[in-house]
Amino acid sequence: MSAAVVPEAERLARVALNRLGEPGETKMTGLVAELGPVRLYELLREERDLEGLLTDVAARLTAVDPVRELERADRLGLRFVVPGDDEWPTQLDDLAGAGSLHERGGVPVGLWVRGPFRLDALVKAVAVVGSRAATTYGDGIASAIAADVARAEHTVVSGGAFGIDRAAHRGAVSAGAPTVAVLACGADRVYPSAHQAMFEHIARDGAVVAEAAPGCAPHRIRFLARNRLIAALSRGTVVVEAAVRSGALNTANWTSRLNRPLMGVPGPVSSGASAGVHEQIRVGAMSLVTSGADVLEIVSGSGEHLVEPLRAEETARDRLTPRQRQVLDAVPAASGAGSDSIARTAGLGVREVAGSLVALEKTGLVEGGLDGWRLTALARP
Amino acid sequence: MSAAVVPEAERLARVALNRLGEPGETKMTGLVAELGPVRLYELLREERDLEGLLTDVAARLTAVDPVRELERADRLGLRFVVPGDDEWPTQLDDLAGAGSLHERGGVPVGLWVRGPFRLDALVKAVAVVGSRAATTYGDGIASAIAADVARAEHTVVSGGAFGIDRAAHRGAVSAGAPTVAVLACGADRVYPSAHQAMFEHIARDGAVVAEAAPGCAPHRIRFLARNRLIAALSRGTVVVEAAVRSGALNTANWTSRLNRPLMGVPGPVSSGASAGVHEQIRVGAMSLVTSGADVLEIVSGSGEHLVEPLRAEETARDRLTPRQRQVLDAVPAASGAGSDSIARTAGLGVREVAGSLVALEKTGLVEGGLDGWRLTALARP
Repeated sequence: MSAAVVPEAERLARVALNRLGEPGETKMTGLVAELGPVRLYELLREERDLEGLLTDVAARLTAVDPVRELERADRLGLRFVVPGDDEWPTQLDDLAGAGSLHERGGVPVGLWVRGPFRLDALVKAVAVVGSRAATTYGDGIASAIAADVARAEHTVVSGGAFGIDRAAHRGAVSAGAPTVAVLACGADRVYPSAHQAMFEHIARDGAVVAEAAPGCAPHRIRFLARNRLIAALSRGTVVVEAAVRSGALNTANWTSRLNRPLMGVPGPVSSGASAGVHEQIRVGAMSLVTSGADVLEIVSGSGEHLVEPLRAEETARDRLTPRQRQVLDAVPAASGAGSDSIARTAGLGVREVAGSLVALEKTGLVEGGLDGWRLTALARP
Repeated sequence: MSAAVVPEAERLARVALNRLGEPGETKMTGLVAELGPVRLYELLREERDLEGLLTDVAARLTAVDPVRELERADRLGLRFVVPGDDEWPTQLDDLAGAGSLHERGGVPVGLWVRGPFRLDALVKAVAVVGSRAATTYGDGIASAIAADVARAEHTVVSGGAFGIDRAAHRGAVSAGAPTVAVLACGADRVYPSAHQAMFEHIARDGAVVAEAAPGCAPHRIRFLARNRLIAALSRGTVVVEAAVRSGALNTANWTSRLNRPLMGVPGPVSSGASAGVHEQIRVGAMSLVTSGADVLEIVSGSGEHLVEPLRAEETARDRLTPRQRQVLDAVPAASGAGSDSIARTAGLGVREVAGSLVALEKTGLVEGGLDGWRLTALARP
């Protein structure tokens, strides 16, 4: 499929290293960057210590068989995409300079992918993430934003979790677009298991992606490693709801490290589910967005998706001439006033004001009575 | 009361000019700044044209009697506070350099005040304003923020209108604090009339303030002039709800012109009542605030009211040792794993991991079963 340019020895070395190490373990990703995968795998098989990496992997080393690993994965419908492949999403290479969090970081050794969506098509991806304990409000907004983004041909990337992640994938699917779920466990596994049907659906048009080797269980540390991939695959990350200590803020942190736009959707200040987002906006780490249009304006190339400045509906007042508006502004809201008094307030001639008042009465904005002219309910401030 | 330093002739000239001009009319405030009130009033009585001001005021000129005006105001319980008085809120002088909007701007010629609260006590004032068509959410938040601000001995200033203004005054009153309502009509009038009781209450401990002369009706242009005073009296302005075209955004505009902090409370993005606020936060014109504490941090002298960084409640995980956390992160969430496998994942020795697992089981975060160790629901990511 995409095996053209990467030598077989390198692909196999990467498969082996992927099985040997933990996802995103910096000792591993750092040594791959330094020595190359073939040389590193060789040195490990020669039982070189390599900053202690050997100790970590020694137990698995003899059992690893990359050829069988690839065969087994193929039977599971998984392919292994590595740097140098046509399908490799090169935006992940930015992880090389983005440091580490919780001793996880760097460019993945490779990615396991299930589903027809090619990762190199992720050039216009947007991550939509947030709380697992989402509110109805958050779910609705996440779906709506994901659908808008998907309709504008940006791919929605998320983590397949309960709450906002699920709502985001669903929104993309509802727009008839493929979506990409990046998991913390093996791409052949289903976690959470309640999302079996959703993952099947995603793998039909989109892709289920994992750095963890097939069969791997989800651990907390793997979620943290996974979050860097969601951030790094996407042009920007939208956080819809996040409590003060939410995993979504870890994804946000990676987005900032990658210098990609980080966006947050506000909510009621009385909602704990929005507190983490408000805090990040408050300190200037996140930009406030309220819609898919806001998101597209930020992640798109300049001028591609400019947000129309919000405008209120045109009112009767808007249709007045400047002079009529000036007169209207001088008409009292409560008790009536004569046209001479209104003329004084407006700083205009009595004759001109009298004419404007007659025109204004026709618009329904003012009314004349026994005590003079006054604003109608329509015009009252 | 505070008449000590301002010569009687100047006070009377200011009373007359206040009656002759419109509130905040730039032609008037500009000429007062240029010529002084006594000289300006003299020139007008000599029928000098003065950039057309004479034309505007000629009709009223003969009728003006500042001595009677003050007597009548006194009977209404109003006093006239002018620049130079001890009670003058000197922060208003910043209006001299803040330009104009809708041909309104500049330092007021004087202010009519009803109520015992002295305007020079407004050194720590916070404006809380927003939509008249407020939601229950907005009302609740405005009251809560106003109460918090008032409890911290900052005076809440608002416009006495329906909706957010009313909620803000009410919040301050509920905290047992005086509050200041700045009206667009004369300080002896009640607009909106439904707020009669509230204005009486405010005038008992606080102050009802107006630039418009006693008896003046509220016009739209007077609301715009009034908004500059709300902004200029306060250290900062909080906008709680504002639709895209809301009068509250005019107050916000004045706050920015005065280089005072402008704050906005977010709400559901599905609520039109918050759209104007979100837009202003989005473009960086407003800081996002979620509470009285956030507001106080911004308007107070540095370090006076620092907001405690938001922290989630301490969890069982927080009470673990770093080593225990490292082991916990390597325990699978779904199927069980043996301690040797967990040790490999964690990159730790088997013996050490076995000890940690026993300790972790006591915390209820992991459980041992036939197929090995797994996370409990308590610890599941």
